Amino acid sequence: MSCNSHAPEPPTLADIEEAAGRLEGRALITPLVESPLLNRRLGCRVLAKAEVLQRTGSFKFRGALNRLSKLTAVERRMGVVAYSSGNHAQGVALAARIVGTPATIFMPKDAPATKLLNTRRYGAVVRFYDRATENREEMAEALASERGAVVVRPYEDRDVIAGQGTVGLEIANQARRLGIHLDAVLVPCGGGGLSAGTALALAETSPGTRVYAVEPQGFDDMARSLAADERKRIAGGGHSMCDALLMPEPGALTFAVARGRLAGGLAVGDPATRRAMVTAFSDLKLAVEPSGAVALAAVLAGAIETAGRTLAVVLTGGNVDPETFSEVLASEGWPPD
Amino acid sequence: MSCNSHAPEPPTLADIEEAAGRLEGRALITPLVESPLLNRRLGCRVLAKAEVLQRTGSFKFRGALNRLSKLTAVERRMGVVAYSSGNHAQGVALAARIVGTPATIFMPKDAPATKLLNTRRYGAVVRFYDRATENREEMAEALASERGAVVVRPYEDRDVIAGQGTVGLEIANQARRLGIHLDAVLVPCGGGGLSAGTALALAETSPGTRVYAVEPQGFDDMARSLAADERKRIAGGGHSMCDALLMPEPGALTFAVARGRLAGGLAVGDPATRRAMVTAFSDLKLAVEPSGAVALAAVLAGAIETAGRTLAVVLTGGNVDPETFSEVLASEGWPPD
Repeated sequence: MSCNSHAPEPPTLADIEEAAGRLEGRALITPLVESPLLNRRLGCRVLAKAEVLQRTGSFKFRGALNRLSKLTAVERRMGVVAYSSGNHAQGVALAARIVGTPATIFMPKDAPATKLLNTRRYGAVVRFYDRATENREEMAEALASERGAVVVRPYEDRDVIAGQGTVGLEIANQARRLGIHLDAVLVPCGGGGLSAGTALALAETSPGTRVYAVEPQGFDDMARSLAADERKRIAGGGHSMCDALLMPEPGALTFAVARGRLAGGLAVGDPATRRAMVTAFSDLKLAVEPSGAVALAAVLAGAIETAGRTLAVVLTGGNVDPETFSEVLASEGWPPD
Repeated sequence: MSCNSHAPEPPTLADIEEAAGRLEGRALITPLVESPLLNRRLGCRVLAKAEVLQRTGSFKFRGALNRLSKLTAVERRMGVVAYSSGNHAQGVALAARIVGTPATIFMPKDAPATKLLNTRRYGAVVRFYDRATENREEMAEALASERGAVVVRPYEDRDVIAGQGTVGLEIANQARRLGIHLDAVLVPCGGGGLSAGTALALAETSPGTRVYAVEPQGFDDMARSLAADERKRIAGGGHSMCDALLMPEPGALTFAVARGRLAGGLAVGDPATRRAMVTAFSDLKLAVEPSGAVALAAVLAGAIETAGRTLAVVLTGGNVDPETFSEVLASEGWPPD
């Protein structure tokens, strides 16, 4: 999406470690949760990184706060502009309040009500765009130049990727303390900031752990790009309930980080995502939004070999409207097996 | 309920500390979670002790494992018998599997399907009783004498109360690490094991923190007993959606521990409980069962002075059927304010 002809320098493990220091005491070190009954049903050990418990209800707060912590005093006075389907929006809104800078955020008209409401409650000004007809990056860039504000990109940003990468660093540390070797870590993937950052963190801190990006079917641009070893754009026209993962192409920067570090990409359909939401509710007692459930969905759907293995899945966010969640719970068969 | 004429000796803080040692690495140290938006709406700071994330989905695993860890080799061979509306059942069932003893558990015919299913999945044998017409204690005692098995009482047991008290010990430790003074801690109360154990733990480790028992309206026997300074039995005939908190009278042992340590009792109705379930979902991303939501409900309902204060509420369990949760989410107005 972002088209920097001179790509910025990719982040390193040291950037992630510095980000962890900046986030300390402000972002939660979210727990790895598991269910003995779920493990038994699946025949493997699944540790869920509960980013739904992160401040603002998703991992996006990490990258936003890391980026905004580096604003200069002048930049803080001018404010920030962002665009987001809703989780980066909330992360930027709360981070902006914490560092003391005004935030304006472009959100799609069809964003979940929870995401829209809370972005405003954290104090940001929201402007709308139409997913189908308008270019949100251009709108944000135009407003930012008009105001002299900083655009906080959702993933094409070294500091944002480094912030999201703290998820991977925590997983490696938590697994080590539990005395566990992780065979694989599955990460939901939209633009690729989290999956790239997590792969970067784990490549050096947990050798032998394979990291996979998980995307909705029809939006598996990262999977295709990894397979082709170059950025690929999906055709479009698909539909998915995963409102946070509808990007048509990996970022240039995220792909540069992900390439050679991600073991591959997996794609799941809405039915598996719905089952994963019910499983997270029933077995882990967590409210997970559709986009946040795709990594668990990939495990449930058998998209990866699991027998006897130990896996971590990132439950990236829980910002789902009660109506949607209620409908999923009510319509899925239960118990799950 | 239980009628020991020679009451067993009440637990001490040392018993709770020993229980914490026994649970280490087997029970989770559950996080204290909070939402900046919820805090702002309420005008106070609310820290939620997320026992829904505890193994088996409720705090009951703590007391059960602490008690079962003390079985002798002979007792382990003979097995255990328990009675429970479903959370103690699951706690005993998993603890029994861990220590290697067979478990038979009497459960009410109208127990939530989740609780029944999972108790069996953890490996226990379930027998049914009728809440209205049968005496579950007598049934359990009869079976236990027939078999030479140990009855694991849900709250009238020194080791069970000590195990539940580790919730209070953790809250005190976590608050200290956060540099927070807690003005009050609110604890859901059925037979009183958790509220008594928590009050015992906090009385010595967090002086100045007032601990309240929270009960469903119509089942506020602990509140009445504390006010009268002697055990009171409620008239009965009431109805509440809180299936785990329908006890008519505090235990003799739990009341002995609670008396003088609990600051009082609060009662909440089903409408407040339903709002608390939606709030926990929306703001904390946690699945909380009705009985597990009453402490948060008391805060939302204004049953206690909150302005400018720092409170902890224990979210005791998350074992709620998807149908029930879905109905609550769908029918409550949202957003909550």
